[in-house]
Amino acid sequence: MKQVQVAVVGASGYTGQELLRILLNHRGVKLVCATSRQYAGQPLWEVFPRFRQVPGSGLKFTDSDVEAIAATGAEVAFLALPHGVAASYARGLVDRGVRVIDLSADFRLDSPDVYEEYYGNPHPDTALMQEAVYGLPEWRREEIARARIVASPGCYPTSILLPLIPLFRAGMLEPEDVVACSGSGVSGAGRKASIPLLFCECNESFHAYGVPKHRHLSEIEQELSHAAGETVVMSFTPHLIPVNTGICSTITAKVKKGADPESVGRLLEEAYAAAPFVRLLGRNQPADTKNVTRTNCVDIGWAYDPRTNRVILMSAEDNVVKGAGGQAVQSFNIMCGFDETEGLWVL
Amino acid sequence: MKQVQVAVVGASGYTGQELLRILLNHRGVKLVCATSRQYAGQPLWEVFPRFRQVPGSGLKFTDSDVEAIAATGAEVAFLALPHGVAASYARGLVDRGVRVIDLSADFRLDSPDVYEEYYGNPHPDTALMQEAVYGLPEWRREEIARARIVASPGCYPTSILLPLIPLFRAGMLEPEDVVACSGSGVSGAGRKASIPLLFCECNESFHAYGVPKHRHLSEIEQELSHAAGETVVMSFTPHLIPVNTGICSTITAKVKKGADPESVGRLLEEAYAAAPFVRLLGRNQPADTKNVTRTNCVDIGWAYDPRTNRVILMSAEDNVVKGAGGQAVQSFNIMCGFDETEGLWVL
Amino acid sequence: MKQVQVAVVGASGYTGQELLRILLNHRGVKLVCATSRQYAGQPLWEVFPRFRQVPGSGLKFTDSDVEAIAATGAEVAFLALPHGVAASYARGLVDRGVRVIDLSADFRLDSPDVYEEYYGNPHPDTALMQEAVYGLPEWRREEIARARIVASPGCYPTSILLPLIPLFRAGMLEPEDVVACSGSGVSGAGRKASIPLLFCECNESFHAYGVPKHRHLSEIEQELSHAAGETVVMSFTPHLIPVNTGICSTITAKVKKGADPESVGRLLEEAYAAAPFVRLLGRNQPADTKNVTRTNCVDIGWAYDPRTNRVILMSAEDNVVKGAGGQAVQSFNIMCGFDETEGLWVL
Amino acid sequence: MKQVQVAVVGASGYTGQELLRILLNHRGVKLVCATSRQYAGQPLWEVFPRFRQVPGSGLKFTDSDVEAIAATGAEVAFLALPHGVAASYARGLVDRGVRVIDLSADFRLDSPDVYEEYYGNPHPDTALMQEAVYGLPEWRREEIARARIVASPGCYPTSILLPLIPLFRAGMLEPEDVVACSGSGVSGAGRKASIPLLFCECNESFHAYGVPKHRHLSEIEQELSHAAGETVVMSFTPHLIPVNTGICSTITAKVKKGADPESVGRLLEEAYAAAPFVRLLGRNQPADTKNVTRTNCVDIGWAYDPRTNRVILMSAEDNVVKGAGGQAVQSFNIMCGFDETEGLWVL
Repeated sequence: MKQVQVAVVGASGYTGQELLRILLNHRGVKLVCATSRQYAGQPLWEVFPRFRQVPGSGLKFTDSDVEAIAATGAEVAFLALPHGVAASYARGLVDRGVRVIDLSADFRLDSPDVYEEYYGNPHPDTALMQEAVYGLPEWRREEIARARIVASPGCYPTSILLPLIPLFRAGMLEPEDVVACSGSGVSGAGRKASIPLLFCECNESFHAYGVPKHRHLSEIEQELSHAAGETVVMSFTPHLIPVNTGICSTITAKVKKGADPESVGRLLEEAYAAAPFVRLLGRNQPADTKNVTRTNCVDIGWAYDPRTNRVILMSAEDNVVKGAGGQAVQSFNIMCGFDETEGLWVL
Repeated sequence: MKQVQVAVVGASGYTGQELLRILLNHRGVKLVCATSRQYAGQPLWEVFPRFRQVPGSGLKFTDSDVEAIAATGAEVAFLALPHGVAASYARGLVDRGVRVIDLSADFRLDSPDVYEEYYGNPHPDTALMQEAVYGLPEWRREEIARARIVASPGCYPTSILLPLIPLFRAGMLEPEDVVACSGSGVSGAGRKASIPLLFCECNESFHAYGVPKHRHLSEIEQELSHAAGETVVMSFTPHLIPVNTGICSTITAKVKKGADPESVGRLLEEAYAAAPFVRLLGRNQPADTKNVTRTNCVDIGWAYDPRTNRVILMSAEDNVVKGAGGQAVQSFNIMCGFDETEGLWVL
Repeated sequence: MKQVQVAVVGASGYTGQELLRILLNHRGVKLVCATSRQYAGQPLWEVFPRFRQVPGSGLKFTDSDVEAIAATGAEVAFLALPHGVAASYARGLVDRGVRVIDLSADFRLDSPDVYEEYYGNPHPDTALMQEAVYGLPEWRREEIARARIVASPGCYPTSILLPLIPLFRAGMLEPEDVVACSGSGVSGAGRKASIPLLFCECNESFHAYGVPKHRHLSEIEQELSHAAGETVVMSFTPHLIPVNTGICSTITAKVKKGADPESVGRLLEEAYAAAPFVRLLGRNQPADTKNVTRTNCVDIGWAYDPRTNRVILMSAEDNVVKGAGGQAVQSFNIMCGFDETEGLWVL
Repeated sequence: MKQVQVAVVGASGYTGQELLRILLNHRGVKLVCATSRQYAGQPLWEVFPRFRQVPGSGLKFTDSDVEAIAATGAEVAFLALPHGVAASYARGLVDRGVRVIDLSADFRLDSPDVYEEYYGNPHPDTALMQEAVYGLPEWRREEIARARIVASPGCYPTSILLPLIPLFRAGMLEPEDVVACSGSGVSGAGRKASIPLLFCECNESFHAYGVPKHRHLSEIEQELSHAAGETVVMSFTPHLIPVNTGICSTITAKVKKGADPESVGRLLEEAYAAAPFVRLLGRNQPADTKNVTRTNCVDIGWAYDPRTNRVILMSAEDNVVKGAGGQAVQSFNIMCGFDETEGLWVL
């Protein structure tokens, strides 16, 4: 198998850790660079003791700039940086011929106005923003394959888009009557020293946050509007759940007059017949995070409630795998011509 | 303080355990009877080692029938039994002059038809069903005070009704556009030997269940319809969360044309100004289960999303306290003329 | 009931929070002062939302010095400060006639040399160190009653001393062949923003730390040597366990030649017959943290292994209650003439 | 790669589940049989939804006898059965030419008397007991390679033997002064419907059990005595910890007069230089379960306490991988001529 030289920029958070874990196991990857301001000079295994003695884990974190990253010979760079920071690396890398897979929110939106509305400041590079491909491999395989820059979707959006897109494409759902409730494991909040993320604060606790307008709404509505061919406006409430990883989303959506709610199962099956990581559980089957953690799978079940004429969609994924590092590697596989599942656990 | 003689029927589940914990600490209670088929003959502290050396915990569980319970001199009996079983005790106790507080679903509904629709068989005692008072103390103090039989509300309904009732009474919400998502700690599923309730099955897991028509829908819609003065039909999806106790509900509801969404805070404040266990957190403040566990409090926050014209209500309670044993004792206090907070933790 | 005016200095950690929780419920306490550099100006309930609407929780944290604390009229001050910091408050308070209950390690040791060996710098006030009473109420009731300054024991020491003292006093155990293994909930590490204390780092993890010479060894060996009348030198390994609160200690100790290992149960019973918070579980009965959390109880079970001629002692307590705030209040009750159990949960 | 036909007998517990997970990913394995009385007729993925869509997971559980297992063409059978039951399958399989890897305790002991002492009844097949190889690959590679029957070690023994064997072989430790304290995740107790294993009973709880003479003592002492060349008698106390998987053992052992405690690190390094799954952390480095879960690794750190002249060894493993299914597959790899790490995660 050919080997692609890879850099991970911002590799010391939970997403970075998961990316490294996947890439160290990937037969087609030669990891040539991992950056972390905080841990510069330390080998990967020292920061993440789980990697001890794993081949490749002796690589040392560097405190790096664009020039230095390009100089490592990296052909593809994953950016696992906070939004705002990622954009400052992307242009320089792309210009130097390094293909970029960005896991931040910086290149996910089409509209600079929406970006500014949700992220509070003007986008620094709208040209690259327009060029970037929204990296949901189940729906953008071809564009991802030839992209110079891929914007890997957010964790919540992935869990909400995959069940909804086929139904909106089929014109089945009302565009302004969708309510999504999601719960995420604590890793979704990042690996930062902060009182609210302490064990004793999160354990035996659960609660909503980001109410009423979480940033991920912007990309969810954008992609659903694309699928529907009309503007989708919806409610979304995320919750913090005391597990390390895992997202479970429950989406209720009003069925359009004349649409056949019994066709949900068939629409999902048709959409994902060739998708290796989407597993359809069938009717009245809830998805459970415990069945997908550490895999790149999304499990999807559905129900229909004739009393309210609403479809209920239930999805589960691992927020740091399919919701972050795994999905980014799935795009990487497509970009580099590997099998889409290469290096990605399904068990 | 006077002492009321009390029996707990079906005292060995998680609800029974919590009831016993509260009653053993209640200055106005003399516990004269606790029944459990499984543990008959054992003192309370042997089954629940937390009670060891607590005064009163030497009482032995009995395998008891109605006659024997009444013979203990109990003036009030709490029924912490499965639905269907509770009804078989209630009539005999009431006829013998024992006031009943039933924590099961047997006497919560007004309509025998709805009971049969949701619980699968005809109600065995529709007369007593009609007589029973739905024991939500914040809205039924006077009826509870003089009741012979109180049907203590379900855990999910309590967390959903308290935020919604004031808004429906004010005519603010559309009656057919409410979506509630709740998560409950595992104690809500009961203390029964069952593979899906094992530690290794629930830990690091979360998922929906009871989709699309959980039994608690029946009492929620009944009480909301009373409050609204019109028929309320809604969506409700419960989830299992890896915590011992705690329920957090997130409710999104469409605002009626012409209603003022900014009045939510005021309506809640007016409704609960004199309610010792309802704590209003204010706008955009999520409720967190960790702040209410082991207390009889319900915390309620709210938000308004002008994009969707929906109100978001967020509530948190302890499912075995305000959602079960604590609320039952709150009714008991009202029935017996004690201060409503007697014996109930607020901290 | 009379009311004693009380200050809590350093009230925003987990120990401070527990102290506040107990004191706000204590009928004989008027809380007049709570200090926190970080939260100065905020009411207690804002920092600890669990306290919302609890009478007294409107008190505001102050960023305070000794003069200001004394000026509040406090008669007793609890110090819930890091070691080293506590000593800088104690002298000034005692000199102003404020009795001090210190929860840090600053005044627990008799010997300045041992203090310096374990804590790395000379003790700043050896006179007050000599005066301070080691506040283990089960063994020092009389001295505590009249003390100006009480050094409340550490969490691990409490769980290890209570089972061992009666056996060492009876001359039953070899002084140099004791091995203690303890596990503590994460709250024991304090409420500080730190990567290793994050939920995702502690959840699904357990490990030893502080090997081979944890600071608590100093006070454990000191008190056991007092009890034995000879120098006790032992092994102690603490572990971090993914629970919020709770300490479980397992102690194996070699029985002296000629001693009767069957007398363990009797010795424990004699020692703790009048101790309201020590619960003896009997032979071969492990102690479980879940039965004591949020109470001031210590549960103790024991076993004897004739193969190795070792006694095994198993104890459980809540590290922030009997291991910190609760035990301090127990001393407070004794100092002020309240019933020893006043304000302390036993259920 | 050649493919070996494999059966898993008793495949529906947590050990069986882990074995199946590993074997379904193993390139050299063709799974031809999985038995489960309870789930006979159901495909693997239906019982373990995590396996859904994984190649091979359509295999159906069978309720099988020895004859039927042999008839599937299995060349190697893993027995993941309760002790006592395993022995009833082993002889028949071996006689039919199926090599057996038994994960129960049935064939781990050399002495029928010790077996009877610890397991309560005479061993049913002492000849096969004598023949069986104790399957600790780090010390028995050659015997495992040619064995007809391998007795895979217990979870606790693995975590205690690997750190201690090199020191006992070097004559460094007193044979009667070893104290081991271990904690295990709840999966170690098996997947059985039982009140004490419920989420609400195990969560926020920890405690010792099996005091003072847990069954695993028998095989630990046997193997340490072999290593020491003299009889080792020790203390061992297991604890239940609220994690799904993971064992952490802390062992303190007295150093013999004249032995050099500083040589521990060197002895461990020499012993495990060629062991792919043993990772030596160095001096004063605790081992943490979170770094080894789902891998076949054992992490080992050590310390020396001159005050007590005791060595402290700290090890961590995953109880269902290196402590059960993974170690069994490691033996399988050796038996079948695969690389020792084939199919076993190290990350």
